[in-house]
Amino acid sequence: MESNHQQTQAAADWLQSVRWNSAENRLDLLDQRRLPDEIVYLELTTSEQVWDAIKQLAVRGAPAIGIAAAFGVYLGVHGASGSREQLLDAAIKQCDYLATSRPTAVNLFWALDRMKQRAEALASAGGEPEAMKRALLDEAKLIQSEDEATCRLIGEHALALFEDGMGVLTHCNAGGLATARYGTALAPMYLAQERGIHLKVYADETRPVLQGARLTAFELQQAGVDVTLICDNMAGAVMQKGWVQAVIVGTDRVAANGDVANKIGTYSVAVLAKAHGIPFYVACPMSTIDLNTPTGADIPIEERHEDEITQGFGKRTAPQGIKVYNPAFDVTPNEYVTAVITEKGVIRAPYGEQLKKLFEQG
Amino acid sequence: MESNHQQTQAAADWLQSVRWNSAENRLDLLDQRRLPDEIVYLELTTSEQVWDAIKQLAVRGAPAIGIAAAFGVYLGVHGASGSREQLLDAAIKQCDYLATSRPTAVNLFWALDRMKQRAEALASAGGEPEAMKRALLDEAKLIQSEDEATCRLIGEHALALFEDGMGVLTHCNAGGLATARYGTALAPMYLAQERGIHLKVYADETRPVLQGARLTAFELQQAGVDVTLICDNMAGAVMQKGWVQAVIVGTDRVAANGDVANKIGTYSVAVLAKAHGIPFYVACPMSTIDLNTPTGADIPIEERHEDEITQGFGKRTAPQGIKVYNPAFDVTPNEYVTAVITEKGVIRAPYGEQLKKLFEQG
Repeated sequence: MESNHQQTQAAADWLQSVRWNSAENRLDLLDQRRLPDEIVYLELTTSEQVWDAIKQLAVRGAPAIGIAAAFGVYLGVHGASGSREQLLDAAIKQCDYLATSRPTAVNLFWALDRMKQRAEALASAGGEPEAMKRALLDEAKLIQSEDEATCRLIGEHALALFEDGMGVLTHCNAGGLATARYGTALAPMYLAQERGIHLKVYADETRPVLQGARLTAFELQQAGVDVTLICDNMAGAVMQKGWVQAVIVGTDRVAANGDVANKIGTYSVAVLAKAHGIPFYVACPMSTIDLNTPTGADIPIEERHEDEITQGFGKRTAPQGIKVYNPAFDVTPNEYVTAVITEKGVIRAPYGEQLKKLFEQG
Repeated sequence: MESNHQQTQAAADWLQSVRWNSAENRLDLLDQRRLPDEIVYLELTTSEQVWDAIKQLAVRGAPAIGIAAAFGVYLGVHGASGSREQLLDAAIKQCDYLATSRPTAVNLFWALDRMKQRAEALASAGGEPEAMKRALLDEAKLIQSEDEATCRLIGEHALALFEDGMGVLTHCNAGGLATARYGTALAPMYLAQERGIHLKVYADETRPVLQGARLTAFELQQAGVDVTLICDNMAGAVMQKGWVQAVIVGTDRVAANGDVANKIGTYSVAVLAKAHGIPFYVACPMSTIDLNTPTGADIPIEERHEDEITQGFGKRTAPQGIKVYNPAFDVTPNEYVTAVITEKGVIRAPYGEQLKKLFEQG
């Protein structure tokens, strides 16, 4: 079920988190739990395997999860025989089944709804079962390629704000591993690399789960980007030294007023950036902006298990029975956000007005 | 060379970081690298072992290092034979040798200078070699008991700034483990506990070496203080929530202008405190204030090995070959320091003037 790829091979190419293998009619999924130690692709041929991979966090990052699930729908129906109606029924069942793999991933439900609607449209149009299957596979590929195009556009808009030789600090992982390719916050770094523009990236390790150390540092290093790993509490010190000219992060949700929910620690970085006169950018697809959430105060903040802090490195590093506060996210108020960078362009304050206008443009 | 002490025994008493064992003519040093898992005392009988224990961070905290080094001088000469002049020469050599164990800790140099001056005074007074040795041991004990008294006074002055029910955030460990007893930044918490005053303490875990998680959370928990462990990047979030009314930290060196060198991450906390209108206090003995260091820019900052960040707790958590920036300290400019709290009282800006005045008072 697994194959080992040499790190040198992967470095020559780019590291794709979700990869459709046409020759084998198979979904190859980078097992992100094993990064950065090992580059291992899970070879998935059934929707149950995809469900499991999502549930077990082998794939993470909202867009990447949605893409994997879309291919999972195809894997769940491609061996089915029977009539058009039976195939439609099977596709709907697969969508409902895969939607149970993670409870809160909005992109997962969005991608599965899209697959379901596509199946219904194909059936309504009198499609033959085998043609319907091929069309569902094409739809999954389209979700993936659209995500790549979106990320590339975000990268273009962001890179226009950067200059050769700049130091750029990022927090957590909003990179290629979390998306089809490029990522959101990391997209300008990949585009800069393609064009010979030098950016010096500082990656916060991002306690407690260390996505910065395990994923961001890893994927940028693989791509040959100049990246330096720091602990979260060093962000102020590198800004004080004048090494950072911009901060860019991803986000889990942008409220209608421009407040930004993202990985815990983002707010601290935003305050530090403001104190040093450094712009603080948030990169995300339009789908992450939620006009139905008035402000950051309306975004529920998940609290996670204390073990992530007390024994996150495999070994216990805090006393038994210690009280812990472990929020997964924090909210950065809009006044700290220099700009929100989407595939449609760069939005600045006043966010309430500007974000609404962006959606009205269609 | 080691002895295991039951944690329950230690909890009943208080945990002494540097303990002179008169019966064995030996320095028993709590191995702080093994906390909070194990309470183990290193049994040191030579100055080389003391040098090593300081270098390898078995003992840490500026005052505790100074105390350990002072006993180290005695251990380095107590077996020596020869004339008064030869003993003086040996004592001076031991002081110079032990001073090479850590570059930034001014208390180390201060304690060793004091031992050197004591040796010179004893020799000038025509002391006999054996009496000189006993007097050097007494001097080391005096440094230790004076430190305990100093910490208690710092605690009194600090506690006067706090109120029952306040939330207090601290970074790294400036506690009893770092000193003879009580600590500097943690002294008001111990005194509050003795007097039934409730302080709610937030302890930053303090990456990369986790002194906050392993030491501060541990020693406060042992003493029954209400302490909550957070990751460094959560400091901003708990301030944003209004849970913190004061920050108090220790320091490795205060420059003549009030700039403060302390564990990496302190500067970030100071900036966050200022942004939230929260007072930022620095607690230290007078011996930590160095009028010969004009500003923070004159304080050398030690950079430590990348392994502390990439595989700090046995397991590798970052890619092989990743670039790392790992400074041990940062400098907080005086404008972020609300007050410096010493055994002589509370000093506020303008520091250049006020610190000088404090020393002139004698």
